[in-house]
Amino acid sequence: MLTCYACERRFETGQRCDCGEPLWVDTDPAGIAWPDRDGVWAFGDLLPVERPPDGLAAAAGGTPLVRTPALDVDGARVHVKLEGTNPTGSFKDRGSAVGVAAAVAAGTDTVGTVSHGNMAASMAAHAAGADLDCVVLVPADIPEARLGRIATYGPRIVRVDGDYGRLYHDALALAPAAGVEFVVSDSPLRVAGQKTTTLEVLRAFAAGEASGAGDGAAPSPSVPDAVVLPVSSGGHASAAWKAVREASAAGLLDDPPRLYFVQAAACAPVARAFERGDEAVTRLAPEEVGETVAYSIANADPPSGTRALAAARDTGGADLAVDDDAVADPQRDLAGAGLRVEAASATPLAAVGTLRELSAVDRGEHVVCVATGVGYGSGSTAVDAETVARADLGAALGVE
Amino acid sequence: MLTCYACERRFETGQRCDCGEPLWVDTDPAGIAWPDRDGVWAFGDLLPVERPPDGLAAAAGGTPLVRTPALDVDGARVHVKLEGTNPTGSFKDRGSAVGVAAAVAAGTDTVGTVSHGNMAASMAAHAAGADLDCVVLVPADIPEARLGRIATYGPRIVRVDGDYGRLYHDALALAPAAGVEFVVSDSPLRVAGQKTTTLEVLRAFAAGEASGAGDGAAPSPSVPDAVVLPVSSGGHASAAWKAVREASAAGLLDDPPRLYFVQAAACAPVARAFERGDEAVTRLAPEEVGETVAYSIANADPPSGTRALAAARDTGGADLAVDDDAVADPQRDLAGAGLRVEAASATPLAAVGTLRELSAVDRGEHVVCVATGVGYGSGSTAVDAETVARADLGAALGVE
Repeated sequence: MLTCYACERRFETGQRCDCGEPLWVDTDPAGIAWPDRDGVWAFGDLLPVERPPDGLAAAAGGTPLVRTPALDVDGARVHVKLEGTNPTGSFKDRGSAVGVAAAVAAGTDTVGTVSHGNMAASMAAHAAGADLDCVVLVPADIPEARLGRIATYGPRIVRVDGDYGRLYHDALALAPAAGVEFVVSDSPLRVAGQKTTTLEVLRAFAAGEASGAGDGAAPSPSVPDAVVLPVSSGGHASAAWKAVREASAAGLLDDPPRLYFVQAAACAPVARAFERGDEAVTRLAPEEVGETVAYSIANADPPSGTRALAAARDTGGADLAVDDDAVADPQRDLAGAGLRVEAASATPLAAVGTLRELSAVDRGEHVVCVATGVGYGSGSTAVDAETVARADLGAALGVE
Repeated sequence: MLTCYACERRFETGQRCDCGEPLWVDTDPAGIAWPDRDGVWAFGDLLPVERPPDGLAAAAGGTPLVRTPALDVDGARVHVKLEGTNPTGSFKDRGSAVGVAAAVAAGTDTVGTVSHGNMAASMAAHAAGADLDCVVLVPADIPEARLGRIATYGPRIVRVDGDYGRLYHDALALAPAAGVEFVVSDSPLRVAGQKTTTLEVLRAFAAGEASGAGDGAAPSPSVPDAVVLPVSSGGHASAAWKAVREASAAGLLDDPPRLYFVQAAACAPVARAFERGDEAVTRLAPEEVGETVAYSIANADPPSGTRALAAARDTGGADLAVDDDAVADPQRDLAGAGLRVEAASATPLAAVGTLRELSAVDRGEHVVCVATGVGYGSGSTAVDAETVARADLGAALGVE
């Protein structure tokens, strides 16, 4: 069964409610205890399919939560959830694993998605892992390199010439007749998988595993004070909210964390709606959208934007935006702490700076920044290397 | 303390024995039980440092072991250990994490390595994670793209003009005077970390987690029949052997797995020595070395080659080589199962084909192929994509 978070109507099938809002897969959290380890399937009791099929699906999730004192922001204690260690390099694997597992259980032959980045590669990989056909709809002007990453897994790739922003709706409309189970960014099945990012964070804190060695006598609390995620379609944001609601319903959270969702200022319809106090997110007009280094979260018409708005308000958090200028330093700081992430994944750390300035996050609070993707192949690093002859190596190393 | 596997002499410090062979870090496996989860530090009782410092080191290991029936080779049941899900994309993070943790514990300021690939990026990241200085020695002709990946983490990079194969020895010789803790490919500290790849495999089988959903009534054995790894310097190979020895000494293995180590035929000094029945591995002359797609394991003078020879013989396995031609299909098959790996990481699956032909691996046996690195940024995929106008999408999806 599926439920609309907004009007509470229930459905047997489908992805969106008659009211227009996206649906969630129903769960029964009563009596659920924290598992003793991470991984998407450790939370099988809260998923539409309890166990994965053989192959790649079993490998999703179980990512490290790293206490990084070097990244602390004016006394706020930073933890990084390293989603880039998923099999295809991003958090998308959690949703793809569940989406594909459900498709296998339902006897579906073909799955699909609408994406030109992490989600496309992830869905193609997980479909391949379960021996399903896969259709990926990409924009006609997709760069070759990004296409190559998707093509690795052998899906059918269709470049679609036209308004890419409308393809989400086209795909869902065509799905029944086309016989394709489209697992798009905020599909109920995908969101069910994506909620395990936050469930893992909550589990680790509850188990006392989040305390840093350097925190010494100050153990971490049993719940983080805040969780900060990038927001694009709003699928992952709503998944974080669902995780918090389920853990609360199970009686596992004394004091739920505040959820903060971050957009790039150049394309920030959710943050705009939050700031205005709007009830719903409205689509940005083309002239309201700029370029951003965080291109993977630039979504002018987020299909779960209004749900992300509700999630922030319900948990006492916020939807906010950060300038590209504010992202460069955090991205470099993360790499300087050994954590390579794509630009979009540096926006949460940038946002912690803003939240500290506003005193929305206090000194001493534990804040989890979700680094959604590793970004291999993205960007380039200026190289400053010296060259020496082998015979001169000792001198180069200061040996006299 | 450190021990020479070959002559059993013991040392307080150092990397290699007076007899010339590489040293192992002493451990006391008596009374050790399997931990209830994976990750490098789950095996802290068997490591020279029991707990990681804050930051990246904590994130190493804990990689998925995936049962992949689609990759079974003539009845041999294949499992893939997906090391590319480590934080910097390869198994090297396990050794870097332990090497850096030990350096921090010892008050060392500067670590270093000799590598132009996965190990270089991994050491640079882990040094950054622990706020240590890092020196990476690369060959003068390293491609820019590979240099950029290393530079991401901000180490000092020294291009050395001269015989790169000799730099391993140069670095160890210069280390004390230069004040640099060089954690090279078969350093005792690195090998201590690398053994956790195999310890995780053994733990998963012992816990009954290795059985595939599709295997139905035939649960996996409590120990795999064989583990197959690529071999370059021999560091990871010797680490696998150390893991098996420790688990056996702890009474945790009834019937230890056979260890197989795979080289590319174009550069296969260990396989040659194995085939000849030699007692030691000898360096290949330049004219004996060819080009190979598996460039990351092409080592003409493997410093732990003789130890890899001993490991294969001691466990009833083998050192063998596979042609580049035999690697292309397994690499494509892995991607076709959703598992993107670099060419070197496809050599174990290629080797299973050889081992089945030789009946060295039997039908029904459970074989673990260690996929050491994800290879983001390596290679390219030919793209076969169609382009349609948005209005024609329904027709393209077969909707009338």
